[in-house]
Amino acid sequence: MTHPTAAILIIGNEILSGRTQDANTHFLCQQLTKIGIEVVEVGIVQDEAEKIIHTIRILSATYTYVFTTGGIGATHDDITAACMARAFHKPLNTNPQALALLSDFYQERLNDARLRMALIPEGAILIDNPISIAPGFQIENVFCLAGVPSIAQAMFETLIPRLKHGPKVYQTTLNCAITENTIADELAQIQLNFPDVEIGSYPFFQPLGNYGVNLVVRSRNQDLLIKAQEAIQQLLEVHGVVPEIQ
Amino acid sequence: MTHPTAAILIIGNEILSGRTQDANTHFLCQQLTKIGIEVVEVGIVQDEAEKIIHTIRILSATYTYVFTTGGIGATHDDITAACMARAFHKPLNTNPQALALLSDFYQERLNDARLRMALIPEGAILIDNPISIAPGFQIENVFCLAGVPSIAQAMFETLIPRLKHGPKVYQTTLNCAITENTIADELAQIQLNFPDVEIGSYPFFQPLGNYGVNLVVRSRNQDLLIKAQEAIQQLLEVHGVVPEIQ
Repeated sequence: MTHPTAAILIIGNEILSGRTQDANTHFLCQQLTKIGIEVVEVGIVQDEAEKIIHTIRILSATYTYVFTTGGIGATHDDITAACMARAFHKPLNTNPQALALLSDFYQERLNDARLRMALIPEGAILIDNPISIAPGFQIENVFCLAGVPSIAQAMFETLIPRLKHGPKVYQTTLNCAITENTIADELAQIQLNFPDVEIGSYPFFQPLGNYGVNLVVRSRNQDLLIKAQEAIQQLLEVHGVVPEIQ
Repeated sequence: MTHPTAAILIIGNEILSGRTQDANTHFLCQQLTKIGIEVVEVGIVQDEAEKIIHTIRILSATYTYVFTTGGIGATHDDITAACMARAFHKPLNTNPQALALLSDFYQERLNDARLRMALIPEGAILIDNPISIAPGFQIENVFCLAGVPSIAQAMFETLIPRLKHGPKVYQTTLNCAITENTIADELAQIQLNFPDVEIGSYPFFQPLGNYGVNLVVRSRNQDLLIKAQEAIQQLLEVHGVVPEIQ
């Protein structure tokens, strides 16, 4: 692949126990796609050091970028910084810049727990936290963000200029009042004719008998996308269906 | 671990491209936790055969159960059945029971594409689809569900009696108007005192300056959970905080 790729690693027992619905994956997938970075896989793991370290090493070696969320606070279950230090064989030291930020913000309320939020793997670059001060950090090609969605989002926005953007992915959705298996064979032929266009077929079933399929056509080549879309629209016309284009 | 464990594998480009927010992970994590099955990890991967096959083999060998969603329809991007057949070295055949279901439902509208939805790995057991007929299937310890959330949920509900339930996990959430790093050190000590209780600390930041932390206390042992909760409430009392118990 010539364009940049990414993986996302969500660290947090609260997602796996079903207590909290993860919102960071959807946000990051949307934002990364928007700047031409392809998200190839996502993992959600427990707050378990060996698993985190093992997974980060594999993802870091496989993709252009890795984004993690969660585990960068001050409590006993916040182990991300220590795990990243171990994953990349770096010492975990008090980062002077992080210490300055925290000292400035907390003043005389800077206790031991808050000081621990300045422990960052050596060589890491800080990521601004415009909401609650304690920074995230980048180590090698891994960006460690907070778990709280508003903070993860604010941190990500500060990162956008640091990332290598890829060519834009164009996308059209054809919302069709037809069952997907009525047109499956012809659609497969169109997919074969346009190998550089990705055609996804996503049926939906809503209450009151409202069902159909969203055909999602994606490509980095806008001309090919338009040609594939036209071929699909012709196929739908044969079946008397006029899609709503989104 | 003596209780049953699970992994979830979400198959679908539409999640990774940010077009659709995955709803199946949250539903499955909630439901599995409710019946005492611990969800240890979740993966989201593209519609890419080699990756799916490789991942399924690892997850199947590691956990009591694996649940997949997505890719079991009739279009070219539905490759789950073929991948599972390859992952477990089974032929992909027309399943007579699935064929009967589809024939009965579609009658003279049973075209080639719909017939493909009866292609199921040999030896698999079907999973009922009360919504749109085309069944899911279980092969070895892997349960393949539809991607459409309403169908995935209906399929999962039919499965509950087939699964080995684990001991109930008790859980209490203490919603506290305090920043987590004020109490981090004492909380870490309580966690050390109660190794069979899992204490999670999840700060939140809402508009209008409403911030605080949810302390989530979980255990399979209800007595220990109550003792740990009491210790946390005593700690909060020292700081003048009365948590809202959820």
